[in-house]
Amino acid sequence: MYRSHNCGELNASHINTEVTLAGWVQKSRDKGFMIWVDLRDRYGITQLIFDEQRTDKAVFEKAKSLGREFVIQVKGTVIERESKNANMATGDVEILVAELTILNEAQLPPFTIEDETDGGEDIRMKYRYLDIRRNPVKNNLLFRHKVSMEVRKYLSDQGFCDVETPYLIKSTPEGARDFVVPSRMNEGQFYALPQSPQTFKQLLMVGGMDKYFQIVKCFRDEDLRADRQPEFTQIDCEMAFVEQEDILDMFEGLTRHLLKEIKGIEVDKFPRITYDYAMKTYGNDKPDIRFEMKFGELNTVAQHKDFPVFNSAELVVGIAAPGCANYTRKEIDALIDWVKRPQIGASGMVYVKCEEDGTFKSSVDKFYDQEDLKKWAEITNAKPGDLILILSGNANKVRIQLSTLRMEVATRLGLRKSDEFAPLWVVDFPLLEWDEESERYHAMHHPFTSPKPEDMALIETEPGKVRANAYDMVLNGNEIGGGSIRIHDRDLQSRMFSLLGFTPEQAEAQFGFLMNAFQFGAPPHGGLAFGLDRLVSILGGQETIRDFIAFPKNNSGRDVMIDAPSVIDDSQLNELHIKVDVK
Amino acid sequence: MYRSHNCGELNASHINTEVTLAGWVQKSRDKGFMIWVDLRDRYGITQLIFDEQRTDKAVFEKAKSLGREFVIQVKGTVIERESKNANMATGDVEILVAELTILNEAQLPPFTIEDETDGGEDIRMKYRYLDIRRNPVKNNLLFRHKVSMEVRKYLSDQGFCDVETPYLIKSTPEGARDFVVPSRMNEGQFYALPQSPQTFKQLLMVGGMDKYFQIVKCFRDEDLRADRQPEFTQIDCEMAFVEQEDILDMFEGLTRHLLKEIKGIEVDKFPRITYDYAMKTYGNDKPDIRFEMKFGELNTVAQHKDFPVFNSAELVVGIAAPGCANYTRKEIDALIDWVKRPQIGASGMVYVKCEEDGTFKSSVDKFYDQEDLKKWAEITNAKPGDLILILSGNANKVRIQLSTLRMEVATRLGLRKSDEFAPLWVVDFPLLEWDEESERYHAMHHPFTSPKPEDMALIETEPGKVRANAYDMVLNGNEIGGGSIRIHDRDLQSRMFSLLGFTPEQAEAQFGFLMNAFQFGAPPHGGLAFGLDRLVSILGGQETIRDFIAFPKNNSGRDVMIDAPSVIDDSQLNELHIKVDVK
Repeated sequence: MYRSHNCGELNASHINTEVTLAGWVQKSRDKGFMIWVDLRDRYGITQLIFDEQRTDKAVFEKAKSLGREFVIQVKGTVIERESKNANMATGDVEILVAELTILNEAQLPPFTIEDETDGGEDIRMKYRYLDIRRNPVKNNLLFRHKVSMEVRKYLSDQGFCDVETPYLIKSTPEGARDFVVPSRMNEGQFYALPQSPQTFKQLLMVGGMDKYFQIVKCFRDEDLRADRQPEFTQIDCEMAFVEQEDILDMFEGLTRHLLKEIKGIEVDKFPRITYDYAMKTYGNDKPDIRFEMKFGELNTVAQHKDFPVFNSAELVVGIAAPGCANYTRKEIDALIDWVKRPQIGASGMVYVKCEEDGTFKSSVDKFYDQEDLKKWAEITNAKPGDLILILSGNANKVRIQLSTLRMEVATRLGLRKSDEFAPLWVVDFPLLEWDEESERYHAMHHPFTSPKPEDMALIETEPGKVRANAYDMVLNGNEIGGGSIRIHDRDLQSRMFSLLGFTPEQAEAQFGFLMNAFQFGAPPHGGLAFGLDRLVSILGGQETIRDFIAFPKNNSGRDVMIDAPSVIDDSQLNELHIKVDVK
Repeated sequence: MYRSHNCGELNASHINTEVTLAGWVQKSRDKGFMIWVDLRDRYGITQLIFDEQRTDKAVFEKAKSLGREFVIQVKGTVIERESKNANMATGDVEILVAELTILNEAQLPPFTIEDETDGGEDIRMKYRYLDIRRNPVKNNLLFRHKVSMEVRKYLSDQGFCDVETPYLIKSTPEGARDFVVPSRMNEGQFYALPQSPQTFKQLLMVGGMDKYFQIVKCFRDEDLRADRQPEFTQIDCEMAFVEQEDILDMFEGLTRHLLKEIKGIEVDKFPRITYDYAMKTYGNDKPDIRFEMKFGELNTVAQHKDFPVFNSAELVVGIAAPGCANYTRKEIDALIDWVKRPQIGASGMVYVKCEEDGTFKSSVDKFYDQEDLKKWAEITNAKPGDLILILSGNANKVRIQLSTLRMEVATRLGLRKSDEFAPLWVVDFPLLEWDEESERYHAMHHPFTSPKPEDMALIETEPGKVRANAYDMVLNGNEIGGGSIRIHDRDLQSRMFSLLGFTPEQAEAQFGFLMNAFQFGAPPHGGLAFGLDRLVSILGGQETIRDFIAFPKNNSGRDVMIDAPSVIDDSQLNELHIKVDVK
């Protein structure tokens, strides 16, 4: 062992102990007759001292040669510091060094290894192994480890069995694009990497393994939006002989456990709202409920007056921005410009200032009197001092616009606090959604989701109205998990595939094994998957999943550190029976 | 919830309780006036009773219709059994059923869902979800879960951080063949699936994460020998600022913990033997030391007599098969035939019976007297009653032959007991091995393995003699883990690549990122990886890893259940910029 202690553990109780430490030179201060070196490892920083009087001359000279990030080993004595540093765990002591070994030299790193670094994102990705030395990144990885361990512990204690499902599976192009893997031993054939272990976990339920979980990598070959990764990690779970309520209870329990163990926060029973309610109230199926600003629909009170914009709108809807009645004309104009940007696409915005004296002042005073505006304030739950922001137009579009505005206002007002956690369930999702492009229904969740029994009658007549036994767990405006009760009946599964536009032959070729399995005694079952990357980043109080992934890829799906993907040898291609075909 | 209890937990204490159970019909016995049904779930079997007198007529009729593997739910009362079954956890009670719901019907399964099934391997693989219902397979999966959890717990408690490394990496065709993944977004380029996270874990060490582990899938596109899988699971570990001794201690600790927690067995400190000793003593670098039969080299005592076969042999070597002196001529001939089979390839075998009276009887009595044979007995450590088996010829070949014979004899004698565990370390592996075909040295472990400092002088002159800081953990004749101290110096790594036949350009293209990282302060580090599939199967007292994998592939790398790999759409190929090129 290269060390007797680590760089984070020595304190006054160790004074006069002989110790051996190893680590990286964080920085060194050479005063001529005395040299201080901050020695860093995973656990902290310890100050070393080399002293012209007390240190052997050769050692002292060697200490002068140390550069940043040199890897060194020192032997020495723990002594009391003259000027203590109360901000450091080891700040009471320093090591008077007797022996110094340079284990490895280091070139000057391309960015500073400090909590606040001077390196931009690109350079830090290229030298990710240096970025990991920085506390913020290192601590994120340690945090992720802690979350994973707690998840496994909780689920295992609840009787769940961690089962590893295969990575080399079959391409089923329904859903997102698959990554595929040419097979050398089976000419002209391809494996696919799993988008999720969905069918395997269902087969485990058919196999009687009634509580399954796995923390597992999944793969989607999608054009990467910001903060998406081609490979990502799921906490994948499934249970048999359960109803939706059982699943919500179980995984609410898991999330509550994590919040308590990891964050020290106790939360109440999670609110449950329907998809319809979420859309009407927040314009969003993953509402951030750390703050209010619920939608107030104003059609009944704002239409049939002389304001043509509202009269012609399908939906007139507003939110009350708390305490913003004192916004200047300039600030309000800036907000109007913001919602009119092409990314949001609102055609305009009406506002009402709710003055402290109970009067109202709006941009549409010409058309509405104080009584009218008072009703608006009631419906949007605006208090004196609030600013009501109103959008109008096509209902679906305007809800999305107002939802975006709601989040923006909350951000500006500091209402999206990273140390506050407001989880909830959104339930009763539609089973299907109509796709304009392909002119057919797509599964909103996936083709294995069970319709609600009470909506089954609608399935042939109004499939768009059928609700599913599907649910999402939402935390602070992010979907962190989602799942459903599955179909476990061959005939219903077969009808579902046909509803989704599969021919019987396609359904058989892609999912025959699953429908076949349903004929041999499939139990009722359902489950859920959490996005671990997202969950960890939210629990960690941060926005970017990339910061919680050791070696992430960039937006072109490249690992810029190892420079992958890359071209491969013709001999490899030959063995795999494929040719590159770049047009 | 479909049940109030599971099928393994009811006992006499529950008598008169109303319960709801759900599960599969294991079997039913219809006596006309009474029907017994064994209801099975993951946790056990509970007997249900339907009785013409006590059961509602409609329920009774429905019970008559139940077939094997139907999924049912019953409500009823726990009652005392008339004829108790002491072999079953639930054998004191049965459920008098009041309500019966058929949750799903089942076709007759293609093989019986019993501990001893009538299904062959192929059919069980095709219907793996039914095979998993059988206790032996189900228990293996639960056992694997338990091992994984204990591994994680132990390593986490020791300060190791579970870091997920990427699956979409770069092809480095040194070593086994890579599985590759065409990139849609990077035309003509490919990712590779990791053969192991080797370089990433080393980069984590450079990044200061000084104790890393991960239970991770790895991929090798090799022609599958029996009991190899194209995807397999490693317990992958790495530590920084450690020497070989520290690593051996740490992972000996892990293995000892597993043996204790999982098997209830305490083992002593693991023996450590060198590779050279293992080869000379067992003809094998993964010796099974549950039994003796060490090799005795007989050259000095058996050569220079009149037996030309021995005189012309490079090596004459024997083992003493305990208690086999009473083998008949026919039994010995069968053994001779066995070693002469082409798979073993011995040209013949000499034997010596060590009689209980201290005399010897051999197949070469013509050439050797009792004094000669007594020396042989001493060298092979043969006791009265043992049978010495001797092979001769080319040293390397004859060691392999005798090692195979040793294992065979041990198996026949029942010395390879599945409930006995004899772990050991084999250390000081050669750094390089000469490959006749390519006429160059290959890395015996991998190109990142550090040579022993004391052998460094040989590296340019006699590279074949350089020993590595490499070690294997061996358990019951299987390598369950292996690792090494790594190179952490750019120049040495560069020399190593050149020794292995890389041009500087190839080394830079494939491993430039690693050598680059070594320039920024790489600490001394090393690690080890366990094969989890193998480890679990040995701890489970079984031979076949496939039995411990939920969804294994067959010897052609196919998943016969889902029928993968398979052909994919031309549109997928187009998007990926590749063409199938079957000749």
